[in-house]
Amino acid sequence: MHVNEVYWSDSEQKIARQAFKIAFDREIEALIQEIRYRVGALSNLDELWQLHNFLSARRHEIDGKYDDDPSAMTFVFSTLVKQGWLDLDELTGLERTKLAKISALSRM
Amino acid sequence: MHVNEVYWSDSEQKIARQAFKIAFDREIEALIQEIRYRVGALSNLDELWQLHNFLSARRHEIDGKYDDDPSAMTFVFSTLVKQGWLDLDELTGLERTKLAKISALSRM
Repeated sequence: MHVNEVYWSDSEQKIARQAFKIAFDREIEALIQEIRYRVGALSNLDELWQLHNFLSARRHEIDGKYDDDPSAMTFVFSTLVKQGWLDLDELTGLERTKLAKISALSRM
Repeated sequence: MHVNEVYWSDSEQKIARQAFKIAFDREIEALIQEIRYRVGALSNLDELWQLHNFLSARRHEIDGKYDDDPSAMTFVFSTLVKQGWLDLDELTGLERTKLAKISALSRM
């Protein structure tokens, strides 16, 4: 399967930007909810440092994941679909080959 | 002023351990309250990462501050008094010279 991963047309770029924002907003909202829940339940220093470790890991992951370099985007979208932050339907309008690759990668 | 900072009698060690615990418990309780307040008020990712930065700094400071090496303890207690986590009265029973040094350092 050949996929031109570097070339994204204007309309594809627009779809990609929107999808990025949708997934990002969902993930951040869920993270803030998770932090609120954990903070509500914590009662000692060990749990506070566990919260800090958790935030460090999530920050590292999120900082690295939302890479909008065109050559990385099929992989990024497949990760977002796999993790449940994005539905394949929300990428409708991308080239069929890109969608097929994102779908295949998301199931690996 | 000569202070024998290395020698702590059994009764002084007991007072020191209790004072350490009092200050530590107060500081951690205040920190957890502060985290709860900040988490309650946060609404976006920048604020979440600011919370993470704050926790990183506080963890680093707390990990370094509660040093129970005898040679460090007058300095540690002076810091705790200066920061308001401990009252000089709670060190009653230590040698007069140690108390004088802790008091003097806490006002610097």
